[in-house]
Amino acid sequence: MQLSLKKLAEYVGGYIIGDENCLIEHVATLKNASTGDISFLTNLKYKNELQATQASAVILSEKHASECLTNALVVANPHPAYAKIATLLYTEKTEKSGVHSMAVVDPTCQIDDSVWIGAHCVVEAGVVIQAGSVIGPGCYIGKDVFIGENCELTVNISLMHDCRLADRVLIHPGVVIGADGFGQAYDNDKWIKVPQVGAVQIGNDVEIGANTTVDRGTIEDTIIEDGVKLDNLIQIAHNVRIGKNTVMAASTAVAGSTTVGENCAIGGCVGIAGHLTIVDNVTITGRSTVLQSVKVPGVYSSSTPLEPNKFWHKNHIRFKQLDDMAKRIKALEKELEKSRG
Amino acid sequence: MQLSLKKLAEYVGGYIIGDENCLIEHVATLKNASTGDISFLTNLKYKNELQATQASAVILSEKHASECLTNALVVANPHPAYAKIATLLYTEKTEKSGVHSMAVVDPTCQIDDSVWIGAHCVVEAGVVIQAGSVIGPGCYIGKDVFIGENCELTVNISLMHDCRLADRVLIHPGVVIGADGFGQAYDNDKWIKVPQVGAVQIGNDVEIGANTTVDRGTIEDTIIEDGVKLDNLIQIAHNVRIGKNTVMAASTAVAGSTTVGENCAIGGCVGIAGHLTIVDNVTITGRSTVLQSVKVPGVYSSSTPLEPNKFWHKNHIRFKQLDDMAKRIKALEKELEKSRG
Amino acid sequence: MQLSLKKLAEYVGGYIIGDENCLIEHVATLKNASTGDISFLTNLKYKNELQATQASAVILSEKHASECLTNALVVANPHPAYAKIATLLYTEKTEKSGVHSMAVVDPTCQIDDSVWIGAHCVVEAGVVIQAGSVIGPGCYIGKDVFIGENCELTVNISLMHDCRLADRVLIHPGVVIGADGFGQAYDNDKWIKVPQVGAVQIGNDVEIGANTTVDRGTIEDTIIEDGVKLDNLIQIAHNVRIGKNTVMAASTAVAGSTTVGENCAIGGCVGIAGHLTIVDNVTITGRSTVLQSVKVPGVYSSSTPLEPNKFWHKNHIRFKQLDDMAKRIKALEKELEKSRG
Repeated sequence: MQLSLKKLAEYVGGYIIGDENCLIEHVATLKNASTGDISFLTNLKYKNELQATQASAVILSEKHASECLTNALVVANPHPAYAKIATLLYTEKTEKSGVHSMAVVDPTCQIDDSVWIGAHCVVEAGVVIQAGSVIGPGCYIGKDVFIGENCELTVNISLMHDCRLADRVLIHPGVVIGADGFGQAYDNDKWIKVPQVGAVQIGNDVEIGANTTVDRGTIEDTIIEDGVKLDNLIQIAHNVRIGKNTVMAASTAVAGSTTVGENCAIGGCVGIAGHLTIVDNVTITGRSTVLQSVKVPGVYSSSTPLEPNKFWHKNHIRFKQLDDMAKRIKALEKELEKSRG
Repeated sequence: MQLSLKKLAEYVGGYIIGDENCLIEHVATLKNASTGDISFLTNLKYKNELQATQASAVILSEKHASECLTNALVVANPHPAYAKIATLLYTEKTEKSGVHSMAVVDPTCQIDDSVWIGAHCVVEAGVVIQAGSVIGPGCYIGKDVFIGENCELTVNISLMHDCRLADRVLIHPGVVIGADGFGQAYDNDKWIKVPQVGAVQIGNDVEIGANTTVDRGTIEDTIIEDGVKLDNLIQIAHNVRIGKNTVMAASTAVAGSTTVGENCAIGGCVGIAGHLTIVDNVTITGRSTVLQSVKVPGVYSSSTPLEPNKFWHKNHIRFKQLDDMAKRIKALEKELEKSRG
Repeated sequence: MQLSLKKLAEYVGGYIIGDENCLIEHVATLKNASTGDISFLTNLKYKNELQATQASAVILSEKHASECLTNALVVANPHPAYAKIATLLYTEKTEKSGVHSMAVVDPTCQIDDSVWIGAHCVVEAGVVIQAGSVIGPGCYIGKDVFIGENCELTVNISLMHDCRLADRVLIHPGVVIGADGFGQAYDNDKWIKVPQVGAVQIGNDVEIGANTTVDRGTIEDTIIEDGVKLDNLIQIAHNVRIGKNTVMAASTAVAGSTTVGENCAIGGCVGIAGHLTIVDNVTITGRSTVLQSVKVPGVYSSSTPLEPNKFWHKNHIRFKQLDDMAKRIKALEKELEKSRG
């Protein structure tokens, strides 16, 4: 799609310095842009690239406008403005509706006429899918699942029985929602399965990344609240609740029955133990280990530094002496204090 | 299903304090239960909820029976008793048998008449599937795979050629069993593939969580023994052996040729290096790193604590000085000893 | 397939000590080999097994040849020689070509006649697949994807629109290539999606392990260069570049916009933060955390040691005092220096 810069400025609520009739078709980085491209500046590291860019226009904030040699689209907050413009330029809505001849849909389902169900899908009995939702190829939708309006299940997704998605939920390939939680009871020298009779509830505007798994609850439901964004290969265990607008980066795992608050930012490769509570507005940096509840908003970290292997070997082994070292420092301090008189 | 408390007590070998004719239909938490629900108490933290519960009955041990104001089902071990009762109340056996018209099954397969194979499955030549097993939609069963009795492959599972499942194996969506192990040989400045000619053997009563991967062996088989329970997103590399009744929580990885003993409990997000041996009856807590064999049963841990980011920064950087710090403490002790003497 | 040892020696460029007419059909470990098997020795740990082996032949280097009591195939580098021989003995090329009747292929695709597309695949408009490639059952190939010659997509793979694979790319089950990167912009108290308009480019001879995810770029492409080998359950985020011949073990994650150099070896369970550069020829051992760029080739590590839980508890808590401990050692040194002087 080709749109005038004027139209884009109106769309995001900004103003133009330069030619408002310039036509924009694509987005590009400052460095590799050419005519017809719009780019953006949020990171001062790229200021040199701003001056050299061949983009037809650049989205930026007022304080950088004077350094822009091409057309400037000035907004309060360039990143979301860029996101909206890119969405406008690139979104192709599926025009298709109906059910592919190689999909299997149970006759008891209530599927809105505007819904598209792709090839090789299976939709079990009692499923409801509301207007505008798209179920891509190879998806499995279990019994009595509810899918709200304008959801997009991309491809090869497993959405197990009784789970509920609200509106505008976007799910990437390979995601599994509502598999059994890991419930095992020890009974006479072996583990027996604890049935997982809860389901999963997913709020509005949730996005779930590729191959992420969200387990169904043991008795009550696992809950992902409105506006949560989960990256790839994340594990959300049974009975977890993730609060509104929380974002979580890839390869993180949240163990069973933990509650993560609203507006949290959890980095990648974080491990969060079970039965904890993390309050609202907590940031946990990548690779941290969380073994206790976090009761005060703020930024938290753990992890140890990368070192050349030969130094690491020496320091690593000393970790086992830490308590001893602390006691010896204390003893030295006492002895010196005594000798001081 | 609705059953009398008397029937449930007989089923799990317990006794009733209260009305043995009370009817039970569902399970619920102590807090949210209502008439017709059965709940359970294992964690004293919930004792207050026991007294307030609206459940028709509660499964508990003798020592808490006196605090139960509703009907009590008294057993030696409430958790497995609960598991058995929930299984009884909720299990719906698939009544279906046969092959869906949109599944592709090679004519050389030996499939028991009681087996169900769902839509969009592919079952390659030479596969054997024994009585009572269910293959859900979208599963791929490779050449010469053997599946024992009463197995359940839920949906979208990849089970590669020559792998063998014993009886009552339960596999959750997205699991991949028998993909090639990661075998690469360095040959004149590039890596060449080492064919993985072993397979995977999975014992009786094994459960495997969503999107977990179990690689086939390099020459001999990767082995998951009877009663092992694996959670989601676990990596089991080639030539690994996981001993009987060992449980492993989500997002853990076991590198190639490592043996984990029987009756071990491995927490989530644990990383276990290759070519190690972990003996029987070892517990490794969540997020631990295992770089050496564990030769003595017991509970083991590693990981560093979560801190506010500004404190972490200071401590984190000191990790690189640990060996130096240890040597300086030693030097101080020597100097003081000399000055004393 | 059965081949003479002479033929195998010619194939890998080695020489024989013993019977060149001996027939080889299978590979086996030294320990479990029997007549007709070929084995190999690379690790001196197995020297005893060499002397006891029942293998018909053993691949080894000159320096161990004298200890081999069976036929020896002597080569400069036994591991790649073994890999080549195993490949020769075990590779079965799919003889099939064409499109399975239960696959859905858009008429606009350009599919070479030699290509096989299995059951339950979907191949969208504009896809090109070149000679000798095999698309196994249940794969999804998005719009305008390009797949070069002799690629193998095993089963249940999601390869999203506009991604490009060069030649001889091998992809294991459950892999997702080209799902949206994790791009979110904060806009008035909620996160909005940043469209991911780049794709993924994958070079020649790349292998990608089961359930690994490689995200598409935000604006430009995510790039996996020639000869890269990725194990299972790896996350490669948007805009990452992985250099030529780099290998990466399972459950590792690379965050957005990071560049990993050529000929690197990244262990399993490693976490690499975003926007970093790792130069060529870097080895990072398993479970390391990488929060800063690595500018000098070499071997790097982080992580803390596994300990019995009760000792770990004491040392773990001291980590928070590390900076304080370092300062107290400094203070003690100063005081002693003063008292000396």
